[in-house]
Amino acid sequence: MDTQEPYLLTPGPITTSMRTKKAMLHDWGSWDDDFNEITAQVRERLLKAANAEETHVCVPVQGSGSFAVEATLGTLVPKEGKVLVLMNGAYGQRMGKTLDYMGRAFVALDKGDYEPPRGEEVEKILAEDPAITHVAVVYCETSSGILNPVQEIAEVVHAAGRSLIIDAMSAFGALPVDAQTLPFDALISAANKCFEGVPGFGYAIIKKPVLAASQGRAHSLCLDLYDQWVYMEKTGQWRFTPPTHVVAAFLEAMKEHEEEGGVQGRYQRYCRNRDRMVAGMRALGFKTLLEDQWLSPVITTFFSPEAEEFNFKTFYNLLKERNFIIYPGKLTEAESFRIGCIGQLHDEQIDQLIVAVQEVLEAMNITLKKTA
Amino acid sequence: MDTQEPYLLTPGPITTSMRTKKAMLHDWGSWDDDFNEITAQVRERLLKAANAEETHVCVPVQGSGSFAVEATLGTLVPKEGKVLVLMNGAYGQRMGKTLDYMGRAFVALDKGDYEPPRGEEVEKILAEDPAITHVAVVYCETSSGILNPVQEIAEVVHAAGRSLIIDAMSAFGALPVDAQTLPFDALISAANKCFEGVPGFGYAIIKKPVLAASQGRAHSLCLDLYDQWVYMEKTGQWRFTPPTHVVAAFLEAMKEHEEEGGVQGRYQRYCRNRDRMVAGMRALGFKTLLEDQWLSPVITTFFSPEAEEFNFKTFYNLLKERNFIIYPGKLTEAESFRIGCIGQLHDEQIDQLIVAVQEVLEAMNITLKKTA
Repeated sequence: MDTQEPYLLTPGPITTSMRTKKAMLHDWGSWDDDFNEITAQVRERLLKAANAEETHVCVPVQGSGSFAVEATLGTLVPKEGKVLVLMNGAYGQRMGKTLDYMGRAFVALDKGDYEPPRGEEVEKILAEDPAITHVAVVYCETSSGILNPVQEIAEVVHAAGRSLIIDAMSAFGALPVDAQTLPFDALISAANKCFEGVPGFGYAIIKKPVLAASQGRAHSLCLDLYDQWVYMEKTGQWRFTPPTHVVAAFLEAMKEHEEEGGVQGRYQRYCRNRDRMVAGMRALGFKTLLEDQWLSPVITTFFSPEAEEFNFKTFYNLLKERNFIIYPGKLTEAESFRIGCIGQLHDEQIDQLIVAVQEVLEAMNITLKKTA
Repeated sequence: MDTQEPYLLTPGPITTSMRTKKAMLHDWGSWDDDFNEITAQVRERLLKAANAEETHVCVPVQGSGSFAVEATLGTLVPKEGKVLVLMNGAYGQRMGKTLDYMGRAFVALDKGDYEPPRGEEVEKILAEDPAITHVAVVYCETSSGILNPVQEIAEVVHAAGRSLIIDAMSAFGALPVDAQTLPFDALISAANKCFEGVPGFGYAIIKKPVLAASQGRAHSLCLDLYDQWVYMEKTGQWRFTPPTHVVAAFLEAMKEHEEEGGVQGRYQRYCRNRDRMVAGMRALGFKTLLEDQWLSPVITTFFSPEAEEFNFKTFYNLLKERNFIIYPGKLTEAESFRIGCIGQLHDEQIDQLIVAVQEVLEAMNITLKKTA
């Protein structure tokens, strides 16, 4: 069955293993000890993956990753707080929009479509505006596929005594995160990303004293992570009905993640996928938006061919017929598309993809100029 | 596999069919046309089940049922609005708490643990307080298992020119809802209830002009149903990553619902389950909290035996060993427990349950006084 359906070359939902999906063939009582044990294991394993067991707590929340981002911002940023949001794509912008809805003040450092925000810029803004209490940054901004320099940003935020919130949605599980050397107050991700679960919940890893001081701040009952945390600690249960099947699948996915060698093992496979895919695409004549230094092992943006014959929808459909679902571009200034390399993808699929792209170019009568 | 694991005699998550669960053995691209088609079908079928295709729209939202309730209240009630919340259990109370978080004014008609709010009481409150813009009521309040008289309430709210929001969480799909004779502005439910899907999203069926007038009201980006609706109409997609597997399972569950005869067929089976279960429990000497007229075909509250030997946790565990997961009670004044009758349960399971309860009573050395 795995091979009959298209591979998802997207930033999530991704292609999951059949073993992970089969964990959903049971019904769980959301109050029952058996399910509480699953929740407890998921939370523990996530903390461990961030080397944060002694310092942070893990709070899951129902919904997509954006729900977890909104919940974290709403729970941690007080009404009189002010956030510096680092933007270079859709997800940084969404954090700004989220804060707008909640009536929380923010300023943006907007670097456009794909330029990375740098530590020294952040340092300067924080020095000039003492009202800023929090900084929010996206680790891997999948709009362009850039890997933002979170380490240098975290260090200047920490030195300035402000609170750092990292949207690590498409990074955590594959990119290194060590809470003991990367200073953050909260780090957010979701089930359907680099741990390779199915979509249905997100989570935040939050410094314990920071969360403990956050009672009564949230703008929303459902998205109040303080309340969720306190209830979960007391009862072992989620406050409201959890997506039981999705949580059970995630635990199975985390076991597979461990068997693959944890974050390091997954990082290696994803880097290999990216390198093989980018090399293959470049050999066909495609060009990446970003220089190698900024390419994430998650998703890569390619410029669309300039040929008049090129049409994204046709390209997409012909690739889908060949069992690959790619992703549209999100740049404001140039035509582009994206190809992800996370999920259950290995050398075999990457090689098949390159063959498929070549076939599709031929079918569309497109000849790309090869650079030597 | 179905018979090896415990049956969930709870108000949801419930026991789903293997066919529904197997629909989760695929990965879907959340932007792809194939998945958009699933979303479109789910929305259409839900409107049809409420006879609301011409007058209302269906907007799903990620998360549990409570997320859909909060999203509906947040999207429809303006900042200067005032809600009359009818309470007779935990879910009415939760609506009050939700409004508190959002800073929306409300008054409560609190009938305690299980007394039903009646039309004439609501009529009187609305006449006396012209500031009230909305009335919120729970159709089936699973705290006690009562079926509230929504028809008489809807009629007085409509006559008074106010807006009615029905939390039909554990009712819609099995209890009759006809938008053409039951006047409501919004009706809310979730995937893991009487349509027998798995948990992961909720939805609201909202009168179209009411939703169209609700731009800019929501307190939360993720829970803004206006924004979700507009985006979905434009693109066919959810704004943020949907729980793809859960949505696909729900469509399969809806097909089974149709094959069972739709709402009417399911209502009949659930009523039969309830009658058989209540009769069996009464024959063993148990007493229901409510008189027959108020018993929902969803979940029933029984008083705990007065015997000193009775302990809920033991009772629960011994029943679980026999493959039945029941539900704790939620009354403030009397010891009780609850048994649900929704989900993939038929005569055979109900009969096995009664045998199991009898065995457990014997194992616990409890003799109940039988009433003739």
